[in-house]
Amino acid sequence: MTYCIGMRIDRGLVFMSDTRTSAGVDNFATSKKMFTWCTPGERVVTIMTAGNLATTQAMISLLEERSKSQEERDPSILRQSTMFQVARLVGSTLKEVIADSSPNGQTSDDQFSASVIVGGQIGEGRPTVYLVYPQGNFIEITDDTPFFQIGETKYGKPILVRTYDKEMSFEEAIKLLLVSFDSTVKSNLSVGLPFDLMVYETDSFDTSRQKRIEQDDPVYQSISTGWGDALRDAFQLLPSYSV
Amino acid sequence: MTYCIGMRIDRGLVFMSDTRTSAGVDNFATSKKMFTWCTPGERVVTIMTAGNLATTQAMISLLEERSKSQEERDPSILRQSTMFQVARLVGSTLKEVIADSSPNGQTSDDQFSASVIVGGQIGEGRPTVYLVYPQGNFIEITDDTPFFQIGETKYGKPILVRTYDKEMSFEEAIKLLLVSFDSTVKSNLSVGLPFDLMVYETDSFDTSRQKRIEQDDPVYQSISTGWGDALRDAFQLLPSYSV
Repeated sequence: MTYCIGMRIDRGLVFMSDTRTSAGVDNFATSKKMFTWCTPGERVVTIMTAGNLATTQAMISLLEERSKSQEERDPSILRQSTMFQVARLVGSTLKEVIADSSPNGQTSDDQFSASVIVGGQIGEGRPTVYLVYPQGNFIEITDDTPFFQIGETKYGKPILVRTYDKEMSFEEAIKLLLVSFDSTVKSNLSVGLPFDLMVYETDSFDTSRQKRIEQDDPVYQSISTGWGDALRDAFQLLPSYSV
Repeated sequence: MTYCIGMRIDRGLVFMSDTRTSAGVDNFATSKKMFTWCTPGERVVTIMTAGNLATTQAMISLLEERSKSQEERDPSILRQSTMFQVARLVGSTLKEVIADSSPNGQTSDDQFSASVIVGGQIGEGRPTVYLVYPQGNFIEITDDTPFFQIGETKYGKPILVRTYDKEMSFEEAIKLLLVSFDSTVKSNLSVGLPFDLMVYETDSFDTSRQKRIEQDDPVYQSISTGWGDALRDAFQLLPSYSV
């Protein structure tokens, strides 16, 4: 599996993905699941993928037009005029790749299935995030549902539900995502470090705030340890229940 | 779905189950999922169920010998000499009920499937808990894996993993289960209040410490609200991450 979150706050967007890929517990590796395209000053598009690795790699290659020689490439993702058009392009590409691999047509529990989070900003549009389904359709983030998760979404959801605040700073948002990821890593072997992080500030049209967070990252370590301690301390303060 | 936890601590066993049952979001109801048998001074057996309600109700009825008239009943679960024998009886009954409903033989994604937690103490045996699979086989709790969950297990797992301590008091154990249940209820519509709680103190052979915890229970309310506040406070104390 995988764990990715795309979140919108007032200041912009924050994306985080893990990097573990596995075909069974005896065959796992590290693979990047976050991809970014940028035309400085005009657009930034970030995609995160979950599901069958052959499917998601093929989709990314098609979006990057790797079928063409280097000099001929002009990724179509850089030619869409809105984020909605980008989401449609991603959806149709994803659907096409899955259909190519599925001998009996696409089914809902398809082994070649995948899902995608795509977010960013184009021109004067508001920064936004879409969740794209393997059927090619998609939903957009709203102020009521300010984040999308794909992959192993359940372990890390409670802290997101309780702590998200749209006015939070980027630093707090990253901390929140790290706590959510840390809870997931501690509960599920199929999600693992390092994590890829991307912060996008509204109207910056800039991709410089990216980072790979490794297992030995000191801030991650102190958040991971500190969160365990903080949970236990918080737990002690709650009233006890007698029967 | 469902959420049930069976946990062993040094002092004994603690069981908690939710009561929501649903066939789609437009058809839900409250149904008890925790069942207890007792021969005072000799044995206590508690069963919690998740999965197809027709399957689990039929299994409980068979274990209680409801096919016999009232005066003829002598539930076989009260005649097993060890908890291991009880788990075997539960497993074979569960497997038989599922097979009865499945026209094409049992499959792993069977719509009639169910799983069961069974725990308790018989005579001089140590109190223990088993997780029984729909195939009829089962695993026992160990000191390394001191709790079993069935149903919607993922949302409430991180807090169990981080906070469990085998030396905790019953009051703390109940608090821990309530926090785990509360995180699940807040994230998943298919798990709902009221909760059934049973506390079993080693060698007590007594079932008096049972309670149904309703939505408006003041201690549950203060744990639910307090946990949200405590999480946010704990979160503030963690170091922030800048990129």
